[in-house]
Amino acid sequence: MKPELKIFKIGGGIIDRETELFEFVRLFAQVEGPKILVHGGGKGASEMLYRLGIAPNLVQGRRITDAATLDIVTMFYAGKTNKQLVAGLQARGTNALGLSGADGNVIMATKRPVGEIDYGFVGDLSEGSVNTRLIEQLLQLGLTPVFCAINHDGQGQLLNTNADTIAASVAKALSVNYAVALHFCFEKRGVLLDVNDEDSVIEKMTLANYGELKESGAISAGMLPKLENAFDALQFGVEKVVIEHALCLHEPLKTTLCLS
Amino acid sequence: MKPELKIFKIGGGIIDRETELFEFVRLFAQVEGPKILVHGGGKGASEMLYRLGIAPNLVQGRRITDAATLDIVTMFYAGKTNKQLVAGLQARGTNALGLSGADGNVIMATKRPVGEIDYGFVGDLSEGSVNTRLIEQLLQLGLTPVFCAINHDGQGQLLNTNADTIAASVAKALSVNYAVALHFCFEKRGVLLDVNDEDSVIEKMTLANYGELKESGAISAGMLPKLENAFDALQFGVEKVVIEHALCLHEPLKTTLCLS
Repeated sequence: MKPELKIFKIGGGIIDRETELFEFVRLFAQVEGPKILVHGGGKGASEMLYRLGIAPNLVQGRRITDAATLDIVTMFYAGKTNKQLVAGLQARGTNALGLSGADGNVIMATKRPVGEIDYGFVGDLSEGSVNTRLIEQLLQLGLTPVFCAINHDGQGQLLNTNADTIAASVAKALSVNYAVALHFCFEKRGVLLDVNDEDSVIEKMTLANYGELKESGAISAGMLPKLENAFDALQFGVEKVVIEHALCLHEPLKTTLCLS
Repeated sequence: MKPELKIFKIGGGIIDRETELFEFVRLFAQVEGPKILVHGGGKGASEMLYRLGIAPNLVQGRRITDAATLDIVTMFYAGKTNKQLVAGLQARGTNALGLSGADGNVIMATKRPVGEIDYGFVGDLSEGSVNTRLIEQLLQLGLTPVFCAINHDGQGQLLNTNADTIAASVAKALSVNYAVALHFCFEKRGVLLDVNDEDSVIEKMTLANYGELKESGAISAGMLPKLENAFDALQFGVEKVVIEHALCLHEPLKTTLCLS
């Protein structure tokens, strides 16, 4: 039997609202057993860029991570947000340790190749990107790794990476030695059958269910990439994916995804 | 015989000059054996505060770390500078891992008590502040810890701490199990006998020499706190303190301090 490991990902929305973030920290600290937290950014970096008079660099409507933007997001994600979360978890009795991908070479990314769009300093992950050995060693020391979405390319360049991708990649890589449950936490109680009804949570979804719901157009467009990521993780060995409200971690209503 | 451990501290000056910082990274990566880096801030945080229109909070000429300032220094020190150093060292083959004091509860500080001046979110260290067990575990994993000057109070509050103090405290705490050499790196080749003559480096200084030189007024006022820190470290078990130029780590001309 593999030991259990719970990986939680929180997004930007909750990071922007301090009271909610503290509440999430309180709830996450109560989660028992080995665990990992992955956090996205928030609006802080964009607001800082605006205050500094650095205009968003948009190409075909997509935001480009130019050097100035990378500097600011690194400061926010790896500096402010990561250290606030770690200090908050320490105060709640969770022995958290913050990591960017550069730290201990724990996640190595590749700068996204320039195609139709040059996304700038954005990193993509591939098989082998995640240094599972170090993460396992840290878990064995009783630490709770807290990942921000900044990685490196091994050549000294930091790269901004999608936090959902980091969570799914870490979950897949660690599923070799752990029974991994991957929790995507956001601002709804799960995947909704009716986007206007907060209580219409689909409690269990298989890959077959997903196919049907996708076909029928019942699932909101914004949920689709998250679900693709989730089923991909399940196909690569993750035992369970949960989609739930970041402030209702210990309540039963949530969406649990499994292959069948 | 205790195993050797080298602890290097770099200050703000070199952090502000990117080319020099890269050169230091190259030289530090060549240092053999277990090692630790402690870095101070730089002018970046002050410049950012200025650009954001946040006036420096000065009381009796001393800078106060108010909440806005703490936010920005955390972003700079724990985010930008720390991750740039770590990524740079990774590129040079040193398996660096960045740490604030909150990470793994590696350094716990106490908010400086409000006396004549309220310094704000500034942390002081005391005996027992340094979690030697975690640092030793990280060293045993072949990692090179890279400390920024941000610590925490264990109650969720981040605190800004003097980087010289961090370096000396880590050196003293680790000297129980290691033969520690503590290197203060700055922009001179060592302690100068004549402040106007860059070549007048005092190559060896004992505690007795220091007393005489201090009395005679030969040592510049700016060097005194560094030397007090250094001799304090030696008295608490650190084997050797070296004061040297950050860009001349492997050259012989430097000041070595020892008790006698």
